[in-house]
Amino acid sequence: MGRWMPDAAGRLSRAALELYEERGFEDTTVAEIAERAGLTKRTFFRHFPDKREVLFPLSARIHQAIVDAIAAAPADLPPLAVVMEGYDAAVDMVNKGHAQARRRRAVIVANPELQERQLTKFAATSAVVAEALCERGVAPRTAFLTAAAGAAAWRAARECWVDGAESQDLHALLRECVADLKAEVAALPTP
Amino acid sequence: MGRWMPDAAGRLSRAALELYEERGFEDTTVAEIAERAGLTKRTFFRHFPDKREVLFPLSARIHQAIVDAIAAAPADLPPLAVVMEGYDAAVDMVNKGHAQARRRRAVIVANPELQERQLTKFAATSAVVAEALCERGVAPRTAFLTAAAGAAAWRAARECWVDGAESQDLHALLRECVADLKAEVAALPTP
Repeated sequence: MGRWMPDAAGRLSRAALELYEERGFEDTTVAEIAERAGLTKRTFFRHFPDKREVLFPLSARIHQAIVDAIAAAPADLPPLAVVMEGYDAAVDMVNKGHAQARRRRAVIVANPELQERQLTKFAATSAVVAEALCERGVAPRTAFLTAAAGAAAWRAARECWVDGAESQDLHALLRECVADLKAEVAALPTP
Repeated sequence: MGRWMPDAAGRLSRAALELYEERGFEDTTVAEIAERAGLTKRTFFRHFPDKREVLFPLSARIHQAIVDAIAAAPADLPPLAVVMEGYDAAVDMVNKGHAQARRRRAVIVANPELQERQLTKFAATSAVVAEALCERGVAPRTAFLTAAAGAAAWRAARECWVDGAESQDLHALLRECVADLKAEVAALPTP
């Protein structure tokens, strides 16, 4: 059953979200998620290592899109501009799923384990970004700081986007947040 | 036994670190940590909710020191300068424990569960900082971005400090990282 079903990961992720909303994350099993998706437990574990991960189905593809965009950025671009090219590439993958992102956030904020996993995802994205900068010749500490600054803008923009109407443009929000960050950092007196 | 023993939390934390180094985090029980510290399991759970938390014994006091410093900062200081006053207050609590910080990091990097807990600690610190900024009248999104920028500088400085010689000054490293962050953000072209 379901072995050749297309988009197994997407079906599992949607089924999991439904069940977490209905019964709560704690009271949902992998077997139930697989059943709801019309798939087997074995198929579940081919796609996700556990029932937390199934709420972040795009993360590997998002990481890849960011790394590809950073590698493709012009050589003379300053590091933070390179990072923002990376997150801009991620925007296009996230932009479509507003309703799902909203529902997913409601499930995540209700569960500390899921919040921890989300923080781990954000940290993994930042680590990927910092590593991609190092490969462009940026010093490790600068790469860490630049990746963290970009991640801050990304997270702030994403949060506003999830909060707001579906019609909002995540690209525009990201630019706003970067401008906001720039103003705050510039306002800091030089010691 | 040990009911009136002074510094129970510190003894438990040191005993846990020793055992995690000797046997690994996974293979150490709360009962063993309590025994090594000459205390009971009940005393352990009076101080820490689980065996991950025992590696972060100062976090509540660090949060308090940061919040107090932020509340005490002059009203006309720009938000990021306020955040750095907060982290400067934390430096004095961390500065003494170089050898322990180094051993603790080695245990944490070897275990994904501990890494998750550490990320949660960093996120909690940032949330506390953002909230303290909001109480000073900073808008929530700006507070989040400013707290994240300060946290980035703090984490980068702390990492350099743990990597380096004990004689290094964490205050100076923090100033260096802030300057580095400032330069990177300023280099970003305005759209």
